[in-house]
Amino acid sequence: MHTLHSDHSRAPALFPDALATACLQQFHTTPPLVHCLTNEVVQSFTANVLLALGAFPAMVVEPEEAGQFSTMANALLINIGTLHQSRAESMLAAIAAANHATTPWVLDPVAVGGLRYRTDFARHLLTLKPAAIRGNASEIMALSGMATMGRGVDSLDTSLAALPAARQLAQQIQTVVAVTGEVDYITDGQRDFAVEGGDQLMTRVVGTGCALSAVVAAFCALEGDRLHHVATACRIMSHVGGQVSQHVAGPGSFIPAFLDGLYQLKTIGI
Amino acid sequence: MHTLHSDHSRAPALFPDALATACLQQFHTTPPLVHCLTNEVVQSFTANVLLALGAFPAMVVEPEEAGQFSTMANALLINIGTLHQSRAESMLAAIAAANHATTPWVLDPVAVGGLRYRTDFARHLLTLKPAAIRGNASEIMALSGMATMGRGVDSLDTSLAALPAARQLAQQIQTVVAVTGEVDYITDGQRDFAVEGGDQLMTRVVGTGCALSAVVAAFCALEGDRLHHVATACRIMSHVGGQVSQHVAGPGSFIPAFLDGLYQLKTIGI
Amino acid sequence: MHTLHSDHSRAPALFPDALATACLQQFHTTPPLVHCLTNEVVQSFTANVLLALGAFPAMVVEPEEAGQFSTMANALLINIGTLHQSRAESMLAAIAAANHATTPWVLDPVAVGGLRYRTDFARHLLTLKPAAIRGNASEIMALSGMATMGRGVDSLDTSLAALPAARQLAQQIQTVVAVTGEVDYITDGQRDFAVEGGDQLMTRVVGTGCALSAVVAAFCALEGDRLHHVATACRIMSHVGGQVSQHVAGPGSFIPAFLDGLYQLKTIGI
Repeated sequence: MHTLHSDHSRAPALFPDALATACLQQFHTTPPLVHCLTNEVVQSFTANVLLALGAFPAMVVEPEEAGQFSTMANALLINIGTLHQSRAESMLAAIAAANHATTPWVLDPVAVGGLRYRTDFARHLLTLKPAAIRGNASEIMALSGMATMGRGVDSLDTSLAALPAARQLAQQIQTVVAVTGEVDYITDGQRDFAVEGGDQLMTRVVGTGCALSAVVAAFCALEGDRLHHVATACRIMSHVGGQVSQHVAGPGSFIPAFLDGLYQLKTIGI
Repeated sequence: MHTLHSDHSRAPALFPDALATACLQQFHTTPPLVHCLTNEVVQSFTANVLLALGAFPAMVVEPEEAGQFSTMANALLINIGTLHQSRAESMLAAIAAANHATTPWVLDPVAVGGLRYRTDFARHLLTLKPAAIRGNASEIMALSGMATMGRGVDSLDTSLAALPAARQLAQQIQTVVAVTGEVDYITDGQRDFAVEGGDQLMTRVVGTGCALSAVVAAFCALEGDRLHHVATACRIMSHVGGQVSQHVAGPGSFIPAFLDGLYQLKTIGI
Repeated sequence: MHTLHSDHSRAPALFPDALATACLQQFHTTPPLVHCLTNEVVQSFTANVLLALGAFPAMVVEPEEAGQFSTMANALLINIGTLHQSRAESMLAAIAAANHATTPWVLDPVAVGGLRYRTDFARHLLTLKPAAIRGNASEIMALSGMATMGRGVDSLDTSLAALPAARQLAQQIQTVVAVTGEVDYITDGQRDFAVEGGDQLMTRVVGTGCALSAVVAAFCALEGDRLHHVATACRIMSHVGGQVSQHVAGPGSFIPAFLDGLYQLKTIGI
């Protein structure tokens, strides 16, 4: 008998705030240098989010240098939001160098599904062993190939509906997948966690999802259980975003308040 | 006898706030997806302005994808502020696809006049049927070719002085032209409106004009009288910008307050 | 006998606030047009900093136009943070035109030292007569070639340790060098000044250093003693940054408050 109650009981457990707090403290003791090859629109906000958390962002884009720099960085972010040919070249050079140096790299498959060039590119990237993938429901379903089997990629896809696709993708390429939305789900294909919090207001600020992916990359630099680290990245953003949204007049004042909140963050939860 | 009074009586009528409010309500019921091919400097602010108003911005820049995406979007913005060859290619692909799909597209001819490459490009774009053009006095005069007949393009050009050029341009290529400045004038070549408001402080924030062009593009997605929709875009920005400027300490705090104001906007005027 | 006291007595004198105030007033009477070829991450913040001070920023990137525009501008900024081949081409065109028109240009050698492509490019730029160079200790030491003789380029380099390199560089290519950090040092190879102020919080905001370089470029447009003008640029940023940092909750609210502070700035010091 499938009641609402039994459905809820089958949903992934909430990621514990105590664990998130412990991971954040680990992060603060070893703030990583994060190489960000991200889209044109969000570079400044992404850098400011990482700096607020105490990490060191750097954007090095020339192909030879991008490779060279990935071996110096502690993590690499690949975000394909404004992908074009020469940036794709830099990304491939950076990923190859990162993999050679065992620097973890994270994929944000922005808008994968409807657009051919990036979808083909993102599918190729799946063969290059990302440490984690962070996307919304539509993107994760498209990336896993499950979207074509179901009702298609649309804005009605919820993160819970995409959890099976996320699990399959995680198993298939041995990675951690975070599918984010009103509730975030983080899975390594065997274990799942849910992260609540956040606020609708965050969808009215450009780059909150892209910046989350950068934070995921930063947390992938930590030693330990990657599933916990990725879940912590999600929890930090939903916690601070949710709190800040209660006290601001709109998306404009959300931005400075959110960065201040990340900067001041010491513990998550009460 | 040309007195100051008779000059004023010949000036275009103010666009009515009641009409702007009605257009804003129409906008809120059908928030458009706006494809922005805009300059490097203002992408983040432009996206945040559109999001604050409830629209959906997207920047897709690879030529093939730019074309593909323009057929999915409800409107397309072309801003040539940081034009270079490969972006120009993407713009042409996006415009061709938009025209094929009857997606309206809007031109912001940043700094046209003094610089050859963009001036030639912008003149070519005029043959591709923009739904609207938004520029300052110098840009509109340069684009219409009237600048060479008068005292030249300089910072002393007022929007009123450029109104004849705007009208001629609107008639010539059957478009709506918004020439903005201390007062904005919006014309379809037959009918004109004036929009007052705004504040000098807005000239101290990068991207207010560019973001206005994105809002013009968003409003061009609406069904109905395009002249009214473009005037509404101008009125929204001047109304919120003017109000916010009264309560902030400078251009830094203008930015979050302006985005909050756009987010909260329900009616224009009292 | 080298005591702490005698070391201090040999340190450069503080740049006088009265002189900085006089230079700022000169700046306000002739606000320059500054052509910025800067990195992707900081363009918007850089433009807003210049606008807040009353200057006029412009980013013109297509090679032919970049050259054309440099002859119209009062100063040119070259920042190699996200250097790649086509942007390097635009920079060379802009510098050639600037030198032909005797427009002063300023180099920000971001991350020079560890990365080959930009390091080679920056060394080449040194032969093209920059009016000033603004970098941190590591960058200035790497640029001067002195880094290879000492303990290497690392984050422990202080600006004072880099002052000999800065002096040598300034003499060698007859320029003004600003090496910035907790204390800034400005030298023309013969005379030195120190600038104190600022705050650690400024290192948590992306682009404060890059924006300083843009302000240095803007001040290089002034007639008079360039060493004083460059020191004034440093002092303005440290003064406003230091003051604002006392009153904000974090790096997020620093940004609007800093821009407001620059906008309101009339005198430096008490």
